[in-house]
This record gives sequence, structure tokens and C-alpha cells, in this order.
Amino acid sequence: MRPDELKDLLRATREGRVSLEDAASALGRSPVEDLGFARLDTHRELRQGIPEAIYGAGKTSDEIIEIAHRMLSVTSSPVVATRVDAKSASSIVAAFPDALHHERARMIVFRRAQNELTGRIVVVCAGTSDLPVADEAAVTADALGAVVGRVTDVGVAGIHRVLASEAELREADVVIVVAGMEGALASVVGGVTPAPVIAVPTSIGYGASFEGLAALLTMLNSCAAGVVVTNIDNGYGAACAAVRILNGGMRS
Amino acid sequence: MRPDELKDLLRATREGRVSLEDAASALGRSPVEDLGFARLDTHRELRQGIPEAIYGAGKTSDEIIEIAHRMLSVTSSPVVATRVDAKSASSIVAAFPDALHHERARMIVFRRAQNELTGRIVVVCAGTSDLPVADEAAVTADALGAVVGRVTDVGVAGIHRVLASEAELREADVVIVVAGMEGALASVVGGVTPAPVIAVPTSIGYGASFEGLAALLTMLNSCAAGVVVTNIDNGYGAACAAVRILNGGMRS
Amino acid sequence: MRPDELKDLLRATREGRVSLEDAASALGRSPVEDLGFARLDTHRELRQGIPEAIYGAGKTSDEIIEIAHRMLSVTSSPVVATRVDAKSASSIVAAFPDALHHERARMIVFRRAQNELTGRIVVVCAGTSDLPVADEAAVTADALGAVVGRVTDVGVAGIHRVLASEAELREADVVIVVAGMEGALASVVGGVTPAPVIAVPTSIGYGASFEGLAALLTMLNSCAAGVVVTNIDNGYGAACAAVRILNGGMRS
Amino acid sequence: MRPDELKDLLRATREGRVSLEDAASALGRSPVEDLGFARLDTHRELRQGIPEAIYGAGKTSDEIIEIAHRMLSVTSSPVVATRVDAKSASSIVAAFPDALHHERARMIVFRRAQNELTGRIVVVCAGTSDLPVADEAAVTADALGAVVGRVTDVGVAGIHRVLASEAELREADVVIVVAGMEGALASVVGGVTPAPVIAVPTSIGYGASFEGLAALLTMLNSCAAGVVVTNIDNGYGAACAAVRILNGGMRS
Amino acid sequence: MRPDELKDLLRATREGRVSLEDAASALGRSPVEDLGFARLDTHRELRQGIPEAIYGAGKTSDEIIEIAHRMLSVTSSPVVATRVDAKSASSIVAAFPDALHHERARMIVFRRAQNELTGRIVVVCAGTSDLPVADEAAVTADALGAVVGRVTDVGVAGIHRVLASEAELREADVVIVVAGMEGALASVVGGVTPAPVIAVPTSIGYGASFEGLAALLTMLNSCAAGVVVTNIDNGYGAACAAVRILNGGMRS
Amino acid sequence: MRPDELKDLLRATREGRVSLEDAASALGRSPVEDLGFARLDTHRELRQGIPEAIYGAGKTSDEIIEIAHRMLSVTSSPVVATRVDAKSASSIVAAFPDALHHERARMIVFRRAQNELTGRIVVVCAGTSDLPVADEAAVTADALGAVVGRVTDVGVAGIHRVLASEAELREADVVIVVAGMEGALASVVGGVTPAPVIAVPTSIGYGASFEGLAALLTMLNSCAAGVVVTNIDNGYGAACAAVRILNGGMRS
Amino acid sequence: MRPDELKDLLRATREGRVSLEDAASALGRSPVEDLGFARLDTHRELRQGIPEAIYGAGKTSDEIIEIAHRMLSVTSSPVVATRVDAKSASSIVAAFPDALHHERARMIVFRRAQNELTGRIVVVCAGTSDLPVADEAAVTADALGAVVGRVTDVGVAGIHRVLASEAELREADVVIVVAGMEGALASVVGGVTPAPVIAVPTSIGYGASFEGLAALLTMLNSCAAGVVVTNIDNGYGAACAAVRILNGGMRS
Amino acid sequence: MRPDELKDLLRATREGRVSLEDAASALGRSPVEDLGFARLDTHRELRQGIPEAIYGAGKTSDEIIEIAHRMLSVTSSPVVATRVDAKSASSIVAAFPDALHHERARMIVFRRAQNELTGRIVVVCAGTSDLPVADEAAVTADALGAVVGRVTDVGVAGIHRVLASEAELREADVVIVVAGMEGALASVVGGVTPAPVIAVPTSIGYGASFEGLAALLTMLNSCAAGVVVTNIDNGYGAACAAVRILNGGMRS
Repeated sequence: MRPDELKDLLRATREGRVSLEDAASALGRSPVEDLGFARLDTHRELRQGIPEAIYGAGKTSDEIIEIAHRMLSVTSSPVVATRVDAKSASSIVAAFPDALHHERARMIVFRRAQNELTGRIVVVCAGTSDLPVADEAAVTADALGAVVGRVTDVGVAGIHRVLASEAELREADVVIVVAGMEGALASVVGGVTPAPVIAVPTSIGYGASFEGLAALLTMLNSCAAGVVVTNIDNGYGAACAAVRILNGGMRS
Repeated sequence: MRPDELKDLLRATREGRVSLEDAASALGRSPVEDLGFARLDTHRELRQGIPEAIYGAGKTSDEIIEIAHRMLSVTSSPVVATRVDAKSASSIVAAFPDALHHERARMIVFRRAQNELTGRIVVVCAGTSDLPVADEAAVTADALGAVVGRVTDVGVAGIHRVLASEAELREADVVIVVAGMEGALASVVGGVTPAPVIAVPTSIGYGASFEGLAALLTMLNSCAAGVVVTNIDNGYGAACAAVRILNGGMRS
Repeated sequence: MRPDELKDLLRATREGRVSLEDAASALGRSPVEDLGFARLDTHRELRQGIPEAIYGAGKTSDEIIEIAHRMLSVTSSPVVATRVDAKSASSIVAAFPDALHHERARMIVFRRAQNELTGRIVVVCAGTSDLPVADEAAVTADALGAVVGRVTDVGVAGIHRVLASEAELREADVVIVVAGMEGALASVVGGVTPAPVIAVPTSIGYGASFEGLAALLTMLNSCAAGVVVTNIDNGYGAACAAVRILNGGMRS
Repeated sequence: MRPDELKDLLRATREGRVSLEDAASALGRSPVEDLGFARLDTHRELRQGIPEAIYGAGKTSDEIIEIAHRMLSVTSSPVVATRVDAKSASSIVAAFPDALHHERARMIVFRRAQNELTGRIVVVCAGTSDLPVADEAAVTADALGAVVGRVTDVGVAGIHRVLASEAELREADVVIVVAGMEGALASVVGGVTPAPVIAVPTSIGYGASFEGLAALLTMLNSCAAGVVVTNIDNGYGAACAAVRILNGGMRS
Repeated sequence: MRPDELKDLLRATREGRVSLEDAASALGRSPVEDLGFARLDTHRELRQGIPEAIYGAGKTSDEIIEIAHRMLSVTSSPVVATRVDAKSASSIVAAFPDALHHERARMIVFRRAQNELTGRIVVVCAGTSDLPVADEAAVTADALGAVVGRVTDVGVAGIHRVLASEAELREADVVIVVAGMEGALASVVGGVTPAPVIAVPTSIGYGASFEGLAALLTMLNSCAAGVVVTNIDNGYGAACAAVRILNGGMRS
Repeated sequence: MRPDELKDLLRATREGRVSLEDAASALGRSPVEDLGFARLDTHRELRQGIPEAIYGAGKTSDEIIEIAHRMLSVTSSPVVATRVDAKSASSIVAAFPDALHHERARMIVFRRAQNELTGRIVVVCAGTSDLPVADEAAVTADALGAVVGRVTDVGVAGIHRVLASEAELREADVVIVVAGMEGALASVVGGVTPAPVIAVPTSIGYGASFEGLAALLTMLNSCAAGVVVTNIDNGYGAACAAVRILNGGMRS
Repeated sequence: MRPDELKDLLRATREGRVSLEDAASALGRSPVEDLGFARLDTHRELRQGIPEAIYGAGKTSDEIIEIAHRMLSVTSSPVVATRVDAKSASSIVAAFPDALHHERARMIVFRRAQNELTGRIVVVCAGTSDLPVADEAAVTADALGAVVGRVTDVGVAGIHRVLASEAELREADVVIVVAGMEGALASVVGGVTPAPVIAVPTSIGYGASFEGLAALLTMLNSCAAGVVVTNIDNGYGAACAAVRILNGGMRS
Repeated sequence: MRPDELKDLLRATREGRVSLEDAASALGRSPVEDLGFARLDTHRELRQGIPEAIYGAGKTSDEIIEIAHRMLSVTSSPVVATRVDAKSASSIVAAFPDALHHERARMIVFRRAQNELTGRIVVVCAGTSDLPVADEAAVTADALGAVVGRVTDVGVAGIHRVLASEAELREADVVIVVAGMEGALASVVGGVTPAPVIAVPTSIGYGASFEGLAALLTMLNSCAAGVVVTNIDNGYGAACAAVRILNGGMRS
């Protein structure tokens, strides 16, 4: 509730147009809709610039279907579900003729943003095994209205592959770097572009990669100034951060 | 070297205006200046949008003085040193009449940016013990040309303190959240602003804070979509990330 | 054995009413019943205020059935089993017509407490994926005789959802906060209620949540004074702690 | 602001006794006082049942003095500072004739609670090296108005020492167990008392104690149902949790 | 080769009874038999007092059968296999009419020691879930010729159960304590017996037990002087250590 | 591009034999071939002395087949795939009549090196459970053209088994030591040979081996000067390091 | 209190030779003497076979002096203090003319055992930097009455140094192996002696030794059957374990 | 003792030229010289190709002086001491007129190798703070007889600095890469040279560098095939590994 709305409500209360009970209730009301097993945060886009997504892990397909129906009906925002396994996905998609299943990204896009954001997000991916996470970032960014470019399989052991992509990188307004194993790609990319660089460590690797810990630590210690990092395998979060940046760029 | 510069050089070579030796040398030359104990990366601002800073930890005051002199003479970029202890700082400042020592931030600003960036960075700080890191972020952002706002001592256990700052947060183009102990502030802030949120865990705490690990993990697992994270105590890096974002916003 | 009982026994021994052998045996006897593969601690409720529960993990359904039968026959306390998988549960429930299987909580309640405890426990849960742990806490507390309230899906990224529940929280005599991922909910709740707050980290999350470690560290480092913590996913233990508190409140 | 206060304010506004501006301001006002370098949370006792304490680590003695003065003048709550080193303590105590310095606990009590809480907190301590943490718990609990009992040097390797204290333990309304090294005392105590047991791991030990990690893990995994845990060395937090419990017991 | 054997060989060489080639070969020969995929260390009992066992994990049943056959034919020592899964066990047992399969211990005893060791090993076990590891210790100790006593389900939360077993403990020449979760039993037992105490942490537990790490750290930090520790779940190693002790006691 | 090639290209450009466009393109071109889902680094052998291998984990058999076909057609280097599971392997081998599947090593060799390297690599393996990793090293080294010797099952607890192999070890130009559990073999071998020793920790073990961490730390802390280490289970990398060494020895 | 003592007491009570009050008191009395800041466990030698030692870390020299005086006066057991820093040691030794200060072991021996134990403990030490811990073990064992042999500086990288000591090792009734860095010595020693082997990891090393963690893990994963382990740097505990073993050997 | 020497000794024994006692003694003798507090391994160069060095940490200057004197007198090998602090160094150097103190490397070279090795070692260093470790590698390699090249301050964030050094890298027979923080340099260097690459992580960094752990994990997970790794800060070990390689190259 904004300050001007507050004054309006108080004025209406003083003038008797709103009862005391209604005023007290309005002041205490939360922008939350209760489904019993979940509460929709329908004002989230207003507050955060990004609508709530459906985190599919640990939810049944029926729960996902119910939440998606509700979100589609009460908002006009994009609606996506992440971390949906293949089996759940087919029953969900059957219930929504317009929904799109991105298999490698493990995502379902129920409704894409209606307007294109200004600015370009480039998702750079170190190895082919990192593609599911890179796809999650790319599909999310696209669903939220961004223009998305892709650069794939440019590990630092073949540094010429990275440098060959320098032009593409320099056209990006935001770069998302997705890398597992030693995760060194973020530093190299951060060193050749002035754009914001969001690093996503992946759990790809074995042994002393400790399921992504090695890549995570590498990226946090990047000697390229201003590289920022998300959770391991969090392509979705990286896309949201990139969209926050584009939203901001739009406003100024 | 940009593509158009490359063509120019080749044309000059073909027309004999540039000798073969000079052309080969120019194509192989690295934008690096060697001081013996350090190599200055004088083109870094060109590539990354942010000039190289002097990382003071483990350097003698004489080394810092020599590097600073050199950087001031070969570039027109802002020049700062970070992690300078109090004792080194006084001999360094003595050598540079115009330099400013920020004691709590452990920084020296030799030269500030000459032009103001468009956009506002707000540095939010959970507790008074986190101020040195928050200051490092604020001083760096200011030196690189940003307008900086501050919100201090708004821990989540007094959630009303955070909400009381909502207006200030909503005016930010980028928010930097600095918090130690459980680091939960980043999630709360990320939930009430659409701006990009850069979370900086600090090493403040004891016992199971494990010198910042607890705050770092909290921030990486933030349930607020799109919060990104830097290394523990890395106020400098957070400011650089914020400046990368403002640079980008400027360009579009 | 209480001091007065000890004196009685000694007096009976002196007066010859109890033989030396019987006295020595009584003084050495342990309140433990041996089933061969397990020893029932039948005096536990006397000592700890909470009867022994059957920890189902790693036990066959036959073992659970035998222990439950024995406990029902030698005590009048509530009898529950935790961490019972779905398959075991159905054969167990078949053997006890009065037993209740709580599927999501993975619990079986063989006998509920006969008297209601005074005081109200509220179980607050951050996300829908944390519900199995929250249910374990709620079912246990109910079986031990407590009145239980529930608040669900109030993650800190939507801080307004938490604040909307403030009235419910303020009616609690004990609050149990169940949260995975970054676990920040405990600090926020601890900041808005004067009741004891028991925080239960869950293993929900991925990557740098390290199976609940992130939430555990967050809760241990809570800046809300007086928040206490249980093991990861230990809804049962949180309910027992809450019942210890209500027991105590009763006594004073 | 409680619901009845809200209705009062709205009624006063409707009746013109309070201006629109004042009402809007009252509804938006945060119970926070800004000292520049710190914000006092003067309503914290109202919300949490426990007033804000001054965390001394990383604060100058002047800062502590200023905050203490302010807190003494704006509230009638108890005022304490924790983690104050010996040198700071003497200059602080010099400024407050009524303040009491508890050296081993590293605490200063500026003002004790004016009323005694009903109920008894017993602080049990495994070894003499754990005494600073046990003292922090005991001094805090006393300052907040509790009656405090002490049991000291009862490590589990001499289990008879623990059992010899059983009577004292059984008189407690809340037991705080302070132990380093292997921290097993919490389980044993939890097994012989029905009272709430709050376990505080300490950083006492060497090698594989990993500065308290071993004791922390032991306590989190306690097989005594309902033992809850605080951060390593957090005697202050344990006392606050105990006071929350006594507060609650009072109310019912 | 013992010093006296060496002199004998040299004398025989000098006297021509042994050729130079044979002497050089004897001095260089290793007491190892090569099966291609494994080398049997047939002199191990001589050197270590304990014959080599067959570590079943990662071996096919055919490999185990071949090694067992070979060991039975070239030595008269006891022969056992550990960590044999149920499926492999049945085909192995089919091939050796005299072999005994201990299911819960996951062991096969092909041949037991022919002579009884003097002295008694008591295996104490905290909970029923720890029984597989306790069984591995007991079956191994028995196979190597020891008299084995058992005390089961005596967790520290019911300290009276432990004390009730004090007589049994005091009869032991070596005590093996097997415990998961918080592993505190080792300290309590170490405090009531003068016998050597070998602590075996188990991987039983969940959450912050980190698959036995909590119990391991507890036991390493035991405040009972002289408690020693094996790897997590290493019942076999504990039995070997106990047998080394009984062997030694025999010799003095 | 070598300096002499650069001069040739510039001369050709000056003389008009090469167009400006072609020269710019040649100077910018990357030796990378794009398959859509993967980019082949066809110049890698030139740069690193070792051709790119196909990392099978997380790739479908179809992807492996396509990459292998492409690599066989554009290079004359050896071509191998690692970490190929048994099921994928059979469909892959069906597509390449000349390919060899090494089951225990989980590798497919599509084409072996055409020339033998000078020098001998000896792969020493501590236990039979470590054989899959030792095989990966041996098969890779052989495919890259090395002569490979094997020493198997020589754990340090039977130190005579190691010493019995001293002659074989002393004939090696490079020794690869593969060991899990405590990984001590690397130090012992490093102490008896002057050859380069490459230590490969394996994930074999249980409990406090923490999936190879124990062996990794042991090897990194080896007191034998000059032992170097690879990632856990990285037999492939060890072989590559050994081949780099033989390549170098060849050159001098 | 032993069973026969119990019967005696009961008989005396029945016959009126002991009053009811005295009997109740005797049965409830704990063998603990309270110094205010510490409780002496004067019956510990009776229960554990080893008297309580004074753990010097974190105690003032005055506290150590008072405890030592008390222990010397109430028992006839050996009395030692461990982890006493050099400065405390000189004031302590000044107060006890008969006390011996072992500087490198950081121990003070106030009174040695009056009778020699049968059996020989050999303390083997990997490097000269490990000597303080080896000394702590040797001095403790000697003070408790054992005959102690020493083997020093026999790291596994010079395996011949270990083998050269085989005779000495084979004369030991218990071997204590003290090693830092990679800690592999325990496995090698465990492989060449049938005696019980107690491994003590030390914090000697740097980098990935992680203050003794590497050596600890190595020793826990030892492939030599029956090697047992103490806490890092716990020479005292190893000696106590060895004395427990010799005590036992004595009894049989 | 080589096989031919063994036969000679046996022949001399048979022919009576050597007494039985002398022969037995010769066969049992270890190539170790005992200084009381240390045992010199005078045959180490023979066995390992590298003479024993004096590890200075934890040794007094007198001990270092005595060991150095002894080593200079009994061998003709190079003699160096590592990790010597500045204060010890000056008294040591005073005792050896020919010794050279390398301050930043914390090393003393008492005697350099008399013959130059064939082949060139290049030490590449990421940042100026990593120089002490790089110096340790370079000084050691030089003392052991190698030709050493240096490349300094070539962090990956300025990838052009690395590429500018490609020529120097390609001339190396072995490359040692020294890097802290994220340690990504090893992968980039490993990707542009066919020489063996030995990666040395340093403890330079802060926060999530965890004292070198981040760089260590990065290097272990390097996607450049055949990069091998040493302990954190182990410049000495890297040089020894490089010399083992050059030794080998020499032999073939």
C-alpha cells in the first residue's frame, strides 16, 4: 500500500465512506492467496520486478497444475515451472494446450511475457554437459521477455574458443557464464567484457569437484572485478538477476 | 584491437606505410606494462569497463606508491588501493597530497572518476560490525563515479527497521546488501525491490558462522529470485559489479 | 529411586522385611525391558517427560510391530513411530486397527495422549516442500497432547506473508519454524514474537544448500536472540522440545 | 501496533482528534532510533520479550558508552553488553558508576531487570574451561530477572558426577548445558530431566574439535528427545531462549 | 626373515649347502602369491598377528570364491570375507559347504581360528540400528578366536541402561563401543571401565550426522582418557585391534 | 598461428595475393569446428601435445558416435572416449567396427596412436578395487602411444609387496600410482624411485574416506619430494600428464 | 561401590552398626571433591585405571598449583599436567620442588607412578617436527609407570628407515605412531608388527594438511587391519590407551 | 643395495673374506645417519633422484646449522633449507660464508648442484602476492641444477597478458604455474603448451578462498588434460617434480 493510497483510505474512513472494520481489515490484508497447500504471492512482480515461479522439485504434477491454473487466472505475468521431471511434464503439458516443455532445461513455460525487454542477454556455456543449466537460464530469460544469445562449449583449456566469441560477448548487455569442473570461464569472460557478468557454477564434474563446490569457489574468488555468482545449477536465478538488470536499464 | 583497427593496420601494411616488422609487432603486442614486480594492465578499463585497482594486501607501501604513480601517469582513470593497513596508509598518503584515506574501509583513493555515472547505488548494511565492508563498497562505487546512498543497521530480527527503509530501497538502481552472521537480509531486501541485488557476506560472527561461510551459504540459497553473491568481505567486487550494471544501463 | 524410597527400602531391610539379596537387587535394578534386539526404556517418560518413540528407519515392520505391541501393553503413554516408509506402514497399520498413518509425515500414531496439554504450539513452514518435516512436528506434538496451529508457505522473500501471520504467531506459546534453503524465516519470526522459537532446518534445496547445512548454519547464527535449533529435518525433536516447554509451563 | 490500538487511532482520526498527517505518520513510523552509526530497536522487548543487548565485539568503548546511555534513557528494560574485552570494560565501567563488570563472562550489566521472573534456570557446565560461556549464560539470565542455579565440572567421563547432580537438575524449569570437546553432556542431562534442555557447544578443545564443531554436531544429533542447540559459545542466546520459556510459563 | 634365519642362510651359503643363486633369491623373495587380479599376502599373520581378510565390496562372487579357495589351501589361518552383499553371499556359500553366512554382519566365515584366545571382548552397541556394525565386530572377533560378549541398545539418553551393564563391562578385557548419531556412549563407557576402549562410529543418523562424521568427531574428542577410534562403520578393524591387544596380553 | 606464418600472411596481403577480407578472417579464425551441441577443438594436439578426448559422462551414445565420427574424419590423432557406461558402449561399438571397448576402464578406443612413444609408463595400483581407475590410466597411455607396465595389489600394509616391485618401478620413466583408502602408496613409491610420480587418489573406501578425499589429502601432503597429484579417479588425466612428460623427454 | 561392599553396608545397617542416615549418605555419595572452580574425580583411577590429569590449557598457574596440591594430598596416584605453556611452567615448578618440567612435551610431572608396569611401549615418530606430540606420549606413559622406547624421524618416504627399526618395533607390546603431513607411517608400521598400534595424527604440515585433518583421515582409513586412532596432537590420550592395554595384559 | 652388490657380498662371505657378523650387519644396515634429534637419509638422492632438503619450519637455527654441516660433509649433493624465517636465517647465514639467503622465498641455499641439468623450467606466477611461492619453486629448481625462466603477474582476468607470454611458455620443458585466489591460470596455460604443467595453488586470497582450498580445487578439476597439482604453497615440491622430469628426459 503506497502512501497516497493510505491517505485515501484514511480520508474515506473519516468521511464514513469506509467502516472502521473494513479499514482495519484493509490495512492488515496481505497480498497473498491461500490454496491450502501453497500461498500465491500475487504482488511479487510489483515488488520484485519478477513474478513468482513454480519450483517443481518435490511437487506432484497435480499440485503444479493447480498452481499454474490459479496463476494464469489471477495475473497477466509470465508463468513458468522449473525442475519438472520428464514424467510430470507430460501430464502437465496435457492439461495446458499452450504450454511449452523444454526438456533439457526441465522447464515448462505456461505463458511468455507479452512485451520484449530492451537489451540482450548472452548465455555462455563451458561444456556440453553444462547445457541443462544454461538452457534453464536461457528459457527463463526468454519467458521473462529478454532477447537471448547463446555461446556454447568454450572451455578455457581451449582459450581460442573463448576469444573467438569475443565479438558476441561484447554485444551483450548482461552475460551469464555457466561452467562446471573448475569454473574458470567466468574469470576469462569477466576480463574481456565490460558488461555485468553473472557466473553460474554447475554440479558437472567428479571427485574433487564436490558436486559443484570447486566451480562455486573458483567463481567467488574470481580475479575479474565485479563477477557475481549464483547457487550451483541455478540457471533460473541467473536469468532473474539478468532481468532485474535489464529492468533497471530500462528505467533510467 | 577492434576489427576496424585491424583492417586499418592491414591497409597501412599493404600500402607500405607500416613495415612488416612493425605490423607483426603491433599484432602481437600486449597492452601490459611491466614494472618488474608487477605488470600494469593499462587497457583493462577498455576491456572490462573498470580500471585495475591496487590490491594492498601483501604489498609494501613502496610498491603501492610506485604502482599508483605509474597508473596516475599512464591513464586518466580513477585509481584506488584496497586492503591497505593503517600503517602503510600514512606513508602512502604522505606521498600523494591529493589522495584520500578512508580508514574504516581500509582504502586510499588517489583519483576519483571525472564524470558522474547516471543511476544510484544503495549500500544496505545489517549491523554496525559490517560497516568496514559496506564502506569498501561505498567508497569504491563513489570513486568510480556513482551516486551512493546508505542504509545502516537494519538486521532482520527487527524486520520493521528494514521495512522502514523500503522507500530508500525502491529509489535504488542497484542495491548492495552487506551482512554477516546469518546473512538473511539479502533475501528480505530482494523481496521488496525490483532492482538488481548484490549480496556481500561478511566474516562478522563467531562459532558456526565459520568466518562468513554461514552468511555466504544463506545468500547463495536465497529464495528471493535473482539475488547474486560476491566473495566474503568483498565490498570492492560488489561495487564493481554495480558499476558494470550502471555502465550498461547508460549504454542502452 | 527417590531418597525417600531409598530410606524405606533400607528400613525394610533392617527390619528383616526385605532380604539382603532382594535389597541388593532392587538397588541395582534398571528400568529397562529387554526384547533381545531392543531394550525398552519404560521409565523414560518419568525421567524425561516424554515417552520413548520408535525410530522406524532401519527397522523391519515386524520389529516395529513387536516394539509397539510391547509399549502399548506396559505403559499408558502415547506411542508413535517416526520415519516409517509407505510400504512398512501398510503392514503395520494392518496389525493395529486403532493406529493412524500420517503419510506425508511418515509417522504412525498408535496411541495419542489421553490428556490435553495447556498451551498452543504453532508450526510455521517456509515452503510447501518443507511440509513433511512440518507435519512430523505437528503430528508428534498432537500425539503428545498439545494443541497445534499451522502457518504454511510464508518464505521471507515475500515478507508480507510472514507479517500477515503475526497475529497467529503472537497467540503461540511455542513456535516451531521449519525452513530449508536459506532458512532465514527463523530470524524473522524470532523478531516478531516473544514466545520460545524452535528452528528446524530442512534438507530442501540444492547445490550450496548442502542438504540442509546452509539452513542449519543460518539458524544457528540467527541475530534474533534466543532462537534455538534442532538437527536437520528433525520435526520430531522440535515437537518434543516444545512439549518439554509446555510441561514446564504447566508445573509452575 | 496492536489491533485495538489501530482501531483507537482510526476512531480518533475519524473524529478529527488526530490529523490525517499525524495518523499517516503514526501508521508508518518505525520504532527505531537512529544514532548515526547504530539504530536502537526500542520496541524490541515489546515484540520479542527480550530487550536489545549491546554486542561488544568490534565496537569501541565510546560507541558502547553512547549506546548504553541512550538505552538507559529511553527504556526501563535491563541493559547489558556482551563480548566486551577487559581493556574496554574498565573505561566503560568508569563511565557508569552502577554498572557491574563480569570479567570471565566478558559482560557488563548496566541495569538489571526490576522484577524477578518465576521459575529457575540451572546452568550445567562440563569442564572448567567452559566456564566463560556458562558465565555468559548465567549473568544474562540473572540480568533479565531469572533465578539461576549452577552445576560445574560434571563431564560425562565421570558419569557419577552428573548423577550426583540429578536432584539439582530436577529442580530446574529450564536447563542450559554448556560443554566443549565431545559435548556429550547434553544427551546425558536430557535423559535425566523432563525440563527443556538448551545445549550450548563451546569452542574448547583442540584438533578434531574444529573449534566447537564436534560439540555442535554431537548436540544436534543428541539421542535425548527434545534437546535444542545454540551457536557455539553462545551463552547469551541460551539465556535468552530460557527467558523466552519462563516468560511463556508465566503467561499460561 | 628373522635375524637367526638370516645367519642360518648365510652359514649354509658359506658351507656350500645353498647355492649363491638360491641365497640371493631367498633374500629377495617376497611372501606374496600372485593370482593375476590380486596378490595374497600369505605371511601377513606372521607379521601382523592377523591374517588377511577378503574385502568383499567391489569384488565379484567368483573373485571372492577364488581368493577364499586359495587362502584356505595355502594357510591354516582363519579366513573371512567382509562387506558381502546378500546376493553374492548365497552363491559363495553354495561353493563352501562349511562356510557360515552372517547376514546382518554382511560377512562369510570360511574357517574359524582353531584355538581360543585368552581374554574376553565385549561389544557394546548404542542402538538397534547400529547392530550390523556391532555384528561385524563380534563375528570377526569370534572368527579370530576370541570369546565375545554383547551388550545392546544402551544409548546415553537412558544412562541407567548403561550403568545397568557396568558389571558386564567390568569383566571385559577389551571393550568395543559401537554408536552412531552423537556417539557419546564411548565417553560414558570409557569412564566406567579400566579396560582398553575401542570406539566405532557408525553412519546411522540423518542430517547433521553427516553419515557418521558427528559420531566420529565425538569419539575423537572423548574426554575419557585413552579411548581410541576406528573409521566409520569399521567393525572389522575394531575387532582386529582388540585381537592385537589380546595377542599381546598373551605374550607378556 | 606461428610468427613465421603470420609474416607470410602479411607478405601475401601486401603483395595482393590475399584479400584484406581473407586476411582479417584468417587472423580472427579459431581452430574450432561447431557441431551445434559441441565444438571440436581440432588444433588441441598442436597446442597441448594431446588430442581432445570425448568425455562420455552425460552424453548420449548418439552424441558420442557423432563426435567420434567427426574427430576420426578431420584428424589423424588417436581418438578415445572415457566414462562410457556399459549400455552406451555396446551401441557405440556396434557403429565402429574397429573400436575397442575396455569394460573395466569404461573406455572406448576408436583409434590408437600410430607411432610408439619412447619411454615406459608403469601404473602401480594399491588394491584390486582400484583397478578401474588404473585401467583408465593404462588404456589411455597405451592409446596415446606409450609402452605401459602394470604392478597391481601392492598396498602399504604389506610393504614387502611394494619392495618386491622395486625393480619394475626403477625401470619406469614415469610412475602412475593409483590408490584409494589412505593413499599412502604414493609416498612409499615416491621414496624408492627417481622417476616422476603421478598420484591418482581413488574414491575406493568408506566412512572417513569421504569418497576419495582422504587419499587426495594424503597424496597432496606426501613427504616424498616431487609427488604430484590429479583429481580423484582421474586415471585419464594421469596418463595425459605422463604422455606430456614422455613427449618432452623425446624432444630434448 | 562393588557388590560385596554393598552387601557389607547393608549388613552393617541391618545390624545397627551403621545408622540409616549414614547408609543413605554413603549410597548417594559421589566420589567427587569440589574446589569451587573444579571438581576432583578422586575415584577415577579406580574406575578407569588411569588417574585424572590436569589439562593445563585455559587454566591459570594458580589454578594448576591448587589442583595439583589437592591431588597429591588425597591420592597416591601419579599426578601430571599437560599443555602447560613455558611461562606458567616456571611458576608452577617453583611451587613443587619435586616436579619435573618437560619443555618440548609442555608437561609437568608432579609425581610418577610408584610401580613399573610390565610391558614396553614404543613411541615411533615420523619427523622431528612431530616430537612435541611424541614427547607428550612418552612422558605420560613413563609417568604412569610404563617402560618407554623411542624411534624417531622415520618418515615413509625413506622406507628403509622404517624397516631398519623393525627389530625395535617387534619388541614393543604397544606401538604409538606419531605422524603429521600425510600420516602414512601408521599403515606401514601396522603392517610389520603384531602389536596393538595407536596412531596419533599431528597438526604438523601446511596447506592441504588442514591442521592435521589429512593425517587423521589417512590413519582412519589405514589398510593395516586394527590400527586405532586418537585426536590430532593427542599424545596424552595415546599413552593412556597404551596403559589401559598394559593394565589389561597384566591382569590376564 | 643392488643385486650385483648382494652377490659380491655373499661371495666374499662364502670365501671367508667377510665374517658372518659383518655380512649380517651389512645386510641389515640402513643408509641412515642418526643425529639424535634427526636421521639423515644420505642415500635419498640415489633412490629418489633428489637429495633430502631441510624443512625449516619448527626447527631452531641451531638444529638447521647442525643438519646442514652434516649434510655438506657426508654428501656432494646440493643442500637447501626451506621455510626459514628471517630471524633464523641471519644466524644461519652467519655460520656458512658460502650460503645464500633468498628472503622472499624463505630459503637458504648452502650448496648448489655442480652440473647443469638439460632442459628449461619456466615458473609462471598469477599475481605479485604469489611471488614467495613462485620464488621457492625457482630457487629450488636452480639449486638442483635447472635453467629457470620466469613469467610474472599474468592473471586470467587479463587473458592478453597470458597470451603475450605464449612464446616463453612454448620454450619450456616443464611449466610450473603458481596461482592463488581462483587458480584458473593453470587451465589456461595447460591449454596452450604441450609441456608438462605442474600447478601450485597458493594460500593468497580471502573469504571463500579458504586459505588456498579454492585454488587447489580449481587446479584438481582443470579441464586441460594432464595438469598435475601439488599441495598449497608447495613451490619446493613443484620444483622437485620438475627436476624428476628433467632427470628422466636426460636418461632416455
